[in-house]
Amino acid sequence: MAKPRRTDEIDTPAVLIDIDRAVANIERAQSYADGHGLPLRPHIKTHKLPMLARRQVDAGAVGITCQKIGEAEVMADAGLDDILLPYNILGRDKLARLRALADRVTLSVTADNPLVVAGLSEAFADRATPLRVLVECDTGMGRCGVQDGEAAAALGRMIETAPGLAFAGLMTYPAAGRAEEADARLAEAVAACRRAGLDVPVVTTGGTPDLWRAHLSTVATEYRPGTYVYLDRYQVHKGVGTVDDCALTVLTTVVSRPVPGRAIVDAGSKALTSDLLGLAGHGIVMEAPSVFVSGLSEEHGHLDCSADPGALSVGDRIRILPNHACVVSNLFDVVHLVSGDTVVDVLPVAARGRVG
Amino acid sequence: MAKPRRTDEIDTPAVLIDIDRAVANIERAQSYADGHGLPLRPHIKTHKLPMLARRQVDAGAVGITCQKIGEAEVMADAGLDDILLPYNILGRDKLARLRALADRVTLSVTADNPLVVAGLSEAFADRATPLRVLVECDTGMGRCGVQDGEAAAALGRMIETAPGLAFAGLMTYPAAGRAEEADARLAEAVAACRRAGLDVPVVTTGGTPDLWRAHLSTVATEYRPGTYVYLDRYQVHKGVGTVDDCALTVLTTVVSRPVPGRAIVDAGSKALTSDLLGLAGHGIVMEAPSVFVSGLSEEHGHLDCSADPGALSVGDRIRILPNHACVVSNLFDVVHLVSGDTVVDVLPVAARGRVG
Repeated sequence: MAKPRRTDEIDTPAVLIDIDRAVANIERAQSYADGHGLPLRPHIKTHKLPMLARRQVDAGAVGITCQKIGEAEVMADAGLDDILLPYNILGRDKLARLRALADRVTLSVTADNPLVVAGLSEAFADRATPLRVLVECDTGMGRCGVQDGEAAAALGRMIETAPGLAFAGLMTYPAAGRAEEADARLAEAVAACRRAGLDVPVVTTGGTPDLWRAHLSTVATEYRPGTYVYLDRYQVHKGVGTVDDCALTVLTTVVSRPVPGRAIVDAGSKALTSDLLGLAGHGIVMEAPSVFVSGLSEEHGHLDCSADPGALSVGDRIRILPNHACVVSNLFDVVHLVSGDTVVDVLPVAARGRVG
Repeated sequence: MAKPRRTDEIDTPAVLIDIDRAVANIERAQSYADGHGLPLRPHIKTHKLPMLARRQVDAGAVGITCQKIGEAEVMADAGLDDILLPYNILGRDKLARLRALADRVTLSVTADNPLVVAGLSEAFADRATPLRVLVECDTGMGRCGVQDGEAAAALGRMIETAPGLAFAGLMTYPAAGRAEEADARLAEAVAACRRAGLDVPVVTTGGTPDLWRAHLSTVATEYRPGTYVYLDRYQVHKGVGTVDDCALTVLTTVVSRPVPGRAIVDAGSKALTSDLLGLAGHGIVMEAPSVFVSGLSEEHGHLDCSADPGALSVGDRIRILPNHACVVSNLFDVVHLVSGDTVVDVLPVAARGRVG
């Protein structure tokens, strides 16, 4: 099919990226960060697009964050040259790829246990420039991370003395809405590291939910927001922005109107994912907010339109704001960049599906 | 990286397909269906692999079912030549692709409303051989479909008289565990169509949950199971097979052991999806069934190992049986076919990501 020029020529389901909103979101966050002297290192997992990573760096970001080596390789191919990989890297294949990546870009990674440190050291021992390794701290999220300052300092010492590695600081992914607790725990870890004789050049934290409170941190040297570039229903729920700030929507067609209270669209869990993030329903119908996205099959979205049975007809094209933008990006091979009703570009989601 | 020869050489996360189990599942279902004289038309959405579609047909299936034109195009490219597309096809681009597809394979589609019938007729009006169209009936699922026999007959008449189309019968996707109700409603629709002077050559129903009760239908002429080829935690819960029959697992590595009760693996929602299907937790750890898959971030699986804190260590490689196999297939670019510990092949998931 010919490349669509206008949104009404796009076949459904499709991801629309309002490029004006995405750029405004990038600039708003960078301006806020600049105003507070806090460097940003955006997480590209949300968009997985080299073009937007470049926009983020051009706007003033000090580098980018990737969650997988595969994502980082794609970004390095596109010329992004300062990458943090906040993940425990394990295994021969991944360590070989990490070593190759370190030869191409300014790279840092994280570790939260001695086995990961040992693997990194073995892979980098004979390298002239050491690999920069940060210690991941659990500051309330309950995922990865060492549990307290003493453990951070001990692992930091291990990194600092391991051949091929240099201790570069601390990293956390804080629980949403608990930035103060996270900051206190980070401060404790910084103090413990210093007591152990370690310099702590980088203290990196992140998360879009608490983006506008990032300047309140007493120890952070850098912030890693991801979803802020698009925002989504969850972030609107968290008060980070409004529905009118959201840049990613899924364009879908009403394919069935079997009963007055139900409409079926061609965007199901393969387009929107089953992520609820604690919300009721699977998204917001932008053209008909009273319609409730009540369920998802793989290829069918179930809309409850009992509140307004006249709202939707077969063939109507509507846009759904998903609960979680990042996972939607991962499901589509391409996204459509739009400005108003004009299709500006159709871009491959270059870093999607990078499982390793 | 070199192609892995043994499972311990596969980098994680990765999808393993136990090819012996998949073939056994195909043969068991075909043998059951043959024994009852009920033709099978397997749904390829579960595996999205031409190789397994071919195996299903070679075992005796009369054709295949695809949910999207994009899936059907991939299967047609691979030589599969009899395809049912049980979906309301709408829109200029899709209708043009459908017309092209109909010139390559024996094709039938479904409709549940007049607008879809009108679009199909316009696209096929000038074609020598009419397109075979079945009426989709809602038999209790509450998704798409006409609501009763009279509506089925009315839409059937509309199809039969529309230029370029031929009424080919009835299709339903029944609610799991409600096959008897579905059968009664299908029988009513068949009777109404016959009263309206329509021949009803095909009555197609499906669903793996009720596969072993398929022979009890009084009207079905064909059955469309999908998940039976791999099975998954949900189907085991439904009693369709045992954990030892399940062919698809996700191989993952323990990357963090932050506290005794928690392990983190490198398979998150990008590998397992958030589909719960009414179950508690996100899968079964095959090597340690007492471990509970309590949560998923995009790149982290959260395992609660309080019941057996010694069960898992950093670096351990384990396999997780997911709740829902079909959506996992859609997330991975390749799957690893294994027989015991031997990697038989690494196949691209050719029909993944076909959103349109």
